Amino acid sequence: MPNVTVIAKPLLQKNDQIAAANRRLLEAKGLVGINVMSAPGSGKTTLLQKTIACLGPARCAVLVGDLQTTRDADRLAQAGAPVVQINTGRGCHLTAAEVADGLATLDLTGRSFLFIENVGNMVCPAGFALGEHKSVVLMSLPEGDDKVAKYPTLFQCADVVLLSKIDLAAAMEFDESRVREDLAQVNSRAPMLRLSTRSGEGFQAWLDWLAAAISAPK
Amino acid sequence: MPNVTVIAKPLLQKNDQIAAANRRLLEAKGLVGINVMSAPGSGKTTLLQKTIACLGPARCAVLVGDLQTTRDADRLAQAGAPVVQINTGRGCHLTAAEVADGLATLDLTGRSFLFIENVGNMVCPAGFALGEHKSVVLMSLPEGDDKVAKYPTLFQCADVVLLSKIDLAAAMEFDESRVREDLAQVNSRAPMLRLSTRSGEGFQAWLDWLAAAISAPK
Repeated sequence: MPNVTVIAKPLLQKNDQIAAANRRLLEAKGLVGINVMSAPGSGKTTLLQKTIACLGPARCAVLVGDLQTTRDADRLAQAGAPVVQINTGRGCHLTAAEVADGLATLDLTGRSFLFIENVGNMVCPAGFALGEHKSVVLMSLPEGDDKVAKYPTLFQCADVVLLSKIDLAAAMEFDESRVREDLAQVNSRAPMLRLSTRSGEGFQAWLDWLAAAISAPK
Repeated sequence: MPNVTVIAKPLLQKNDQIAAANRRLLEAKGLVGINVMSAPGSGKTTLLQKTIACLGPARCAVLVGDLQTTRDADRLAQAGAPVVQINTGRGCHLTAAEVADGLATLDLTGRSFLFIENVGNMVCPAGFALGEHKSVVLMSLPEGDDKVAKYPTLFQCADVVLLSKIDLAAAMEFDESRVREDLAQVNSRAPMLRLSTRSGEGFQAWLDWLAAAISAPK
């Protein structure tokens, strides 16, 4: 679609400007922004539910992107942190402008973490900065061990890769060394953490990573 | 992104025109076109490998959309049917023009089924007709039972919904009745077939559905 290519650059520049403003706003209020991306069904919402419970709801705020339901927002609201749902309609990723609108309605005072749950999609979210300080990419074991090689752009932008649903390892074939090799090809800085929100295995390492993210210089 | 909306309509009209030409080409050669869509990791490639083995490679041809690897095409080529890989780069779905290019390089003579494996994505592929006669939407059990409600546009365009990886049912919570209720809200014509390519359970019903698709009037 050449026409899209022609207009994409100014659109992305505009998005980047708004993303930079979002980031400045977060920094002024003392928050770190965490953009959480994955395929549908990798466990983003469950991860955030448990993360908020561990960190304490008073320290967190959440923006959730979804095509049209409020199911994820409803689940996250039960965790006790303020949540704003962004319905993208047919939009396949969040944009910085949508995040700016969401931030305007969230009371961020005294909070430390803004989690942004992006639309479930391994392609489009990677191209749009939102103002985040860190990008988290989840992939779940049942998705198969070829996903890093197949969706490298998403994994390239990750600051940490979470391998989720590892409690299902016994029920399927999954070559973790292959994933680590593929990840080393496209991203040498992001650690890969294995975790299960169900069993709790690996969760502490994720919380440690978040603690480092909040204490790192912006 | 208002600028994208402005140009989307003519782009989609152009896509539809090419899709119609693809469809006429398939009909002239006696093939039925099957567009297979799902999230990454739902099992599209494994489904097609086994389907080709059951139908007989001589009856099948395959187009595979992927961001940049040839892994799926390599797997499908082993099944013995002619395969053309379409690398979409950062493109999050196949377009009718890409399918037209692929069709031009495939020998379709004497074949009955053209399978088009779309890019793994539950959002964007739904908006782009490719020239298919039937749309197949896969969702795997580990993705969770909320996906129909969250990605209704994809499920609306389905002629059949395949619930895959049902061999994992014992290892997780999944409310199938919820999925059926959500599907009834957005699509009353598509049957939902449960299957496991691993155990073979439910596979015959899928083959029966394909047999009906090839014998239906175009």
